Amino acid sequence: MKESLILEIQDKISINDMEILKVLLKDLYAADIAELIDELSKDEIKVLIPIIPVDKLAYSLAELDFDDKHTILNLLAPKELKIILDNMYADDIADLLGPLSIGKSKELLKLMKKEDAEQIQNLLGYDEDSAGGIMTTEYIAIKEGKTVRDALNIIRDIAREAEMIYYIYVVSQTKELMGVLSMRELITASPEARIKDLIQKKVINVRLDLDQEEVARIISKYDLLAVPVVNHKKQLLGIITVDDIIDVIEEEATEDIYKMAATTEVDFDDENNTIVKASLKRSPWLIVLLFASILSGSVIDVFSDLLNTVVALALFMPTLAGTGGNAGTQSLAIVVRGLATGDLNTKDLREHLFNEVKVGSLVATICGLIIGLVALVWQGNYMLGVVVGLAMFCNILSATFVGTTTPFILNYLGIDPAVAAGPFITTVIDASGLFIYFSLARLFLPYLT
Amino acid sequence: MKESLILEIQDKISINDMEILKVLLKDLYAADIAELIDELSKDEIKVLIPIIPVDKLAYSLAELDFDDKHTILNLLAPKELKIILDNMYADDIADLLGPLSIGKSKELLKLMKKEDAEQIQNLLGYDEDSAGGIMTTEYIAIKEGKTVRDALNIIRDIAREAEMIYYIYVVSQTKELMGVLSMRELITASPEARIKDLIQKKVINVRLDLDQEEVARIISKYDLLAVPVVNHKKQLLGIITVDDIIDVIEEEATEDIYKMAATTEVDFDDENNTIVKASLKRSPWLIVLLFASILSGSVIDVFSDLLNTVVALALFMPTLAGTGGNAGTQSLAIVVRGLATGDLNTKDLREHLFNEVKVGSLVATICGLIIGLVALVWQGNYMLGVVVGLAMFCNILSATFVGTTTPFILNYLGIDPAVAAGPFITTVIDASGLFIYFSLARLFLPYLT
Repeated sequence: MKESLILEIQDKISINDMEILKVLLKDLYAADIAELIDELSKDEIKVLIPIIPVDKLAYSLAELDFDDKHTILNLLAPKELKIILDNMYADDIADLLGPLSIGKSKELLKLMKKEDAEQIQNLLGYDEDSAGGIMTTEYIAIKEGKTVRDALNIIRDIAREAEMIYYIYVVSQTKELMGVLSMRELITASPEARIKDLIQKKVINVRLDLDQEEVARIISKYDLLAVPVVNHKKQLLGIITVDDIIDVIEEEATEDIYKMAATTEVDFDDENNTIVKASLKRSPWLIVLLFASILSGSVIDVFSDLLNTVVALALFMPTLAGTGGNAGTQSLAIVVRGLATGDLNTKDLREHLFNEVKVGSLVATICGLIIGLVALVWQGNYMLGVVVGLAMFCNILSATFVGTTTPFILNYLGIDPAVAAGPFITTVIDASGLFIYFSLARLFLPYLT
Repeated sequence: MKESLILEIQDKISINDMEILKVLLKDLYAADIAELIDELSKDEIKVLIPIIPVDKLAYSLAELDFDDKHTILNLLAPKELKIILDNMYADDIADLLGPLSIGKSKELLKLMKKEDAEQIQNLLGYDEDSAGGIMTTEYIAIKEGKTVRDALNIIRDIAREAEMIYYIYVVSQTKELMGVLSMRELITASPEARIKDLIQKKVINVRLDLDQEEVARIISKYDLLAVPVVNHKKQLLGIITVDDIIDVIEEEATEDIYKMAATTEVDFDDENNTIVKASLKRSPWLIVLLFASILSGSVIDVFSDLLNTVVALALFMPTLAGTGGNAGTQSLAIVVRGLATGDLNTKDLREHLFNEVKVGSLVATICGLIIGLVALVWQGNYMLGVVVGLAMFCNILSATFVGTTTPFILNYLGIDPAVAAGPFITTVIDASGLFIYFSLARLFLPYLT
């Protein structure tokens, strides 16, 4: 959506030109309206709400962040709210109600038909990162005995309400998932054909409690538009559509990147995101890492006599610690991402570690030679060159080892390996790198001075 | 796919039990067959190929990496290859031929119908990261004048070949994109209704040369199953389906994570990925960063007299550099990811920077007080506490500033901001942090000793 259009709309709002506003809004998609609302102030939203078509408002509500949702809910009368809720998909309503107070949530549920409200309450009961938490209940299910003609008639009746009509699920009397049929197969089949004879009986499905990241992996692997969600009795309870999975994939990638930077999620549009709240989100890890880095200080303390004797040793501390940290981060990022996308598994540890150590040795040799030469030329002390070069070699090799194994171990323990990335690995390698460096320097001390 | 099933299949291959193998393969989806082939050796693949149903083989070929694709292409006779190619979608064939030698590619094109081969050659001409490079040509397009009944008949005829039949594009005589109609609307409409009266005339579309990341953003924003690709004359040339977009989103997230770790892509399954090749991929950035970190060494060199006088100053170098780097990485990761997902734009720089500086000041104060106290208690020198605490404050504040502005500036210059992340920012902050620290120490030197 163009910046200029948003400005024009804001301008028309300020002069209350409702006729032009109606024309401008008419051409916008629901997703654009969501984007627009996101940019407007509360007062501007107030002016706009009455002229946004209800179906578009319902749809765009699902795309908004909590603050804007809340603003809009408070602007609408119960009658309007009822229409909006009728126009929303069950999973979006559950997402809308989830963060509200119980009182407010009950108030909205009362506006809905009793059976719809019950469905929403069920959805609210599932963990929001599980299949149950992201599924919707508006799918198409038919009984085995029907013909293609029956099925098409049923679909025509409920097509408007269902979120995904291109997969038709076939269920038994007890709601057990028996098979699936795509719209592609349905419209190319003879109208008289029996559904039973057409269905694909082996249906890719997910259990209610499966983690959303796993659901994403399955939809992505099998190129599905939706996947059915079943309980332990194999009863069909809902479906998860590909558009929600795209959001999951983006969310999980963001989470991993933030974890690798030792910070937590940021909501760019949350106006309540005060400075204090944001600082409290970031400080804990910084402080933990701050204390961890004092370990490096202690290593220097232990060897301070050495530093007093050969001050030149200090010059190479940043380079040794930095390069070790970088090499470790490289190894780690490869494993973290490999585990996240499923390219690597726990069983691959040995083979992958073996390869990494080989690569690490070569990289360590190259970097060791370079920094050794730098030390020799800069300080004119060839023994210093040997010490610095050797320290670099050992440091990169151990960094590669730590960077490769740590995420595998965390993954095995059920901890997200991304938390170990970046800053953590760097802090550990910092201390161990300095220890290696000074130990070598002590060993070679007679030749250094 | 279960590990045990792969082992069982490998076992049956080793004893050449083709009957059991056929049974085992029958139940597998194409995506599972791709996963299986990925795990097998060349000799094992050789045994399996003749009994994999052609349509599944065709589909799984699209999911394989280059090495396995090559192995399989070499195992098949021209007649079999022709059947496989007939069963593949145009975009997958283009991906298959892209990395082949011109000779081999021409050989395969000759097996195809002339018009299909021409289509593939067109697709091969587009940049592989652009809309043209990822689109397929198997879409459903009908002329405006048709009725719903005509349209359904056309779709029934070509449903098997088209990659996506749930969006029907309406084109003029000159192939100009006039509108779109979903299968949902089509099957609920009266058979006699004119397509012209049903279509949505404003069609979300992308230009041939649009970057794949932008295409992903559009499909994700509007929750589409596919998006049409047009040229400058608005002629419809192809479509991009949501399953390919999921691959793009995962690819781009991996790329960003790798860039933040200063490394480049790794192909876990490439057997030609020798140690030397892998080392060459990783060393360049390590070496650049190594030389950059010598800047920190030079800062220490300039202030070495100071370090000689107050050795305790060295103890806090790792903590100052580390915490500054971590704070900068946090600020940077937030901007990098915000720019990648579209939550932040260049125009948001001022507001976001203002917030970050406020958050940074608070975080800097907290960390400054903590390390100041640590220095006081540990070294019993309250002036050292003041210097270290003040240095921490300045360091975090400048790190926040650098971490926030750098990715915006790179983005403005058209450089991917992820390259600046992690190691780069850390190295810069390292040097500037030490400079601040020693400058403050020099200022307070009379009170330190």
